[in-house]
Amino acid sequence: MSQVHVYRLRVKFGDCDPAGIVYYPKFFDWFHQAMESWFDNVLGAPYATVIWDRKIGFPAAHTQADFQAPCNIGEDLAIEVRVDRVGRSAVHLAFRVRSDVGDVTKALGSTVVVTVSLDPESDYHMRPMALPEDLATRIRSFAGGDTKTPAEEA
Amino acid sequence: MSQVHVYRLRVKFGDCDPAGIVYYPKFFDWFHQAMESWFDNVLGAPYATVIWDRKIGFPAAHTQADFQAPCNIGEDLAIEVRVDRVGRSAVHLAFRVRSDVGDVTKALGSTVVVTVSLDPESDYHMRPMALPEDLATRIRSFAGGDTKTPAEEA
Amino acid sequence: MSQVHVYRLRVKFGDCDPAGIVYYPKFFDWFHQAMESWFDNVLGAPYATVIWDRKIGFPAAHTQADFQAPCNIGEDLAIEVRVDRVGRSAVHLAFRVRSDVGDVTKALGSTVVVTVSLDPESDYHMRPMALPEDLATRIRSFAGGDTKTPAEEA
Amino acid sequence: MSQVHVYRLRVKFGDCDPAGIVYYPKFFDWFHQAMESWFDNVLGAPYATVIWDRKIGFPAAHTQADFQAPCNIGEDLAIEVRVDRVGRSAVHLAFRVRSDVGDVTKALGSTVVVTVSLDPESDYHMRPMALPEDLATRIRSFAGGDTKTPAEEA
Repeated sequence: MSQVHVYRLRVKFGDCDPAGIVYYPKFFDWFHQAMESWFDNVLGAPYATVIWDRKIGFPAAHTQADFQAPCNIGEDLAIEVRVDRVGRSAVHLAFRVRSDVGDVTKALGSTVVVTVSLDPESDYHMRPMALPEDLATRIRSFAGGDTKTPAEEA
Repeated sequence: MSQVHVYRLRVKFGDCDPAGIVYYPKFFDWFHQAMESWFDNVLGAPYATVIWDRKIGFPAAHTQADFQAPCNIGEDLAIEVRVDRVGRSAVHLAFRVRSDVGDVTKALGSTVVVTVSLDPESDYHMRPMALPEDLATRIRSFAGGDTKTPAEEA
Repeated sequence: MSQVHVYRLRVKFGDCDPAGIVYYPKFFDWFHQAMESWFDNVLGAPYATVIWDRKIGFPAAHTQADFQAPCNIGEDLAIEVRVDRVGRSAVHLAFRVRSDVGDVTKALGSTVVVTVSLDPESDYHMRPMALPEDLATRIRSFAGGDTKTPAEEA
Repeated sequence: MSQVHVYRLRVKFGDCDPAGIVYYPKFFDWFHQAMESWFDNVLGAPYATVIWDRKIGFPAAHTQADFQAPCNIGEDLAIEVRVDRVGRSAVHLAFRVRSDVGDVTKALGSTVVVTVSLDPESDYHMRPMALPEDLATRIRSFAGGDTKTPAEEA
């Protein structure tokens, strides 16, 4: 079972739409922010460094979300990040958005990101490449024993 | 088989991220814009009128997307809107994002929206209610003969 | 001289554009977030409560910013909020965005917000109304002795 | 007197906030989109080409806006782009946002952009450089005879 990283935020006025609740595309922005926070605080590899110094990016190949309860301005939310699976290039992340008080599930989501090179000179420029070993090791450690090994990935 | 509504746009600088491609949460904003355009141009019920005059909203219950090719600044895109299914309250929309020149599929997505009342006095305030009959009729007509009837919805 | 409220944030990937720096409209979103944080933490009147329970809003009448240094992904920023002037309806806010380490000024901005009613039944619906006395008192106290009195406002 | 380029858009649900009107930072996004449209359609130098092929960027040094009337979902807007002044590196752009029907002024704004190199190898990487001659010529032609010459710029 994966460990959990928690990213906290307060819902802002500009996150919400005329119906008074969070405009749903915003959840995917939060998922990305939560992933960045996980790089910064858990993987020991700040996202900015990975992007700029190592020229490695993680575009999404697939993402989905179920919205279970609306979120309102001023609510304190916790976004839980878990790892469902680690592939050779892909990382399957699972997200749970919950109220920070009361533990109400607001949304469940998941994103599959793929490791690519951001270096225009690389053969893997914007194409799937292997996750660098240091990141793979840390992500597998975070994911824990239940994570399938790359060999099991289709 | 559903008819198709096409919403066109040009990718802007502010839609893109430091990797130089569209930041993926933006696709969901475009899906919503395409749905609004479908209300405005196909359903004969401008989205603004539905929201403000009739106080009916369509929050997303579920959404997902597969990203197949990156989108860059200046690209002209066409977002195709189809209806997969019409329920009593829910409408299942399917989206295809393609380059407007060359017909390359960029992303495939879908969103299930639920009809709710935006009127704080209503029993259905932010709760699922039946799709008003005029909209249901137009949406079913757009969706065509292959759409499942409400009776078949779980 | 006004007191200072500080709102902190880390620059995220999605805040940045293909030039690799913060897309400038984002600064104005941050100014609004900093104002909300000031309501929540300094004025003793959470922004959500003011908007929803008291049905009072603060649309911008004027805003401007000078950008002095670019902001990058992963940077920790502090946004300083000061009050330049308090009118009968208007509040003149000044913002300074600085790096949280090293105190480099990134941007200087200001926004004039106007107090309006968000209640469609009110005579002041979306029109300038007097700042409620409790808020006016707290804001003047925060602003300190250098703030011009309403009588001096044109 | 400058010529005018007009960029049109319809206000979308996601552009608006819980007060039901356009969230003001969005205007600056529209100003940037209008500038891109001006490059694409008037300057004969598509913005994407300028950014990616010529590695030239135009970060904002200063921007401001006066908001005169709220904008609502579904409104058709026209954003007028004019040139106030052309410097050696800087271009002073003026914007007017008006309803496309009825000619109501919604907002007046201006932005000073500075020409920089986006090439990390260049001496002018993210630093002011001279506007390339072909662009300067076209911009001055658009700006017309009232535009001050670079020699007059402080």
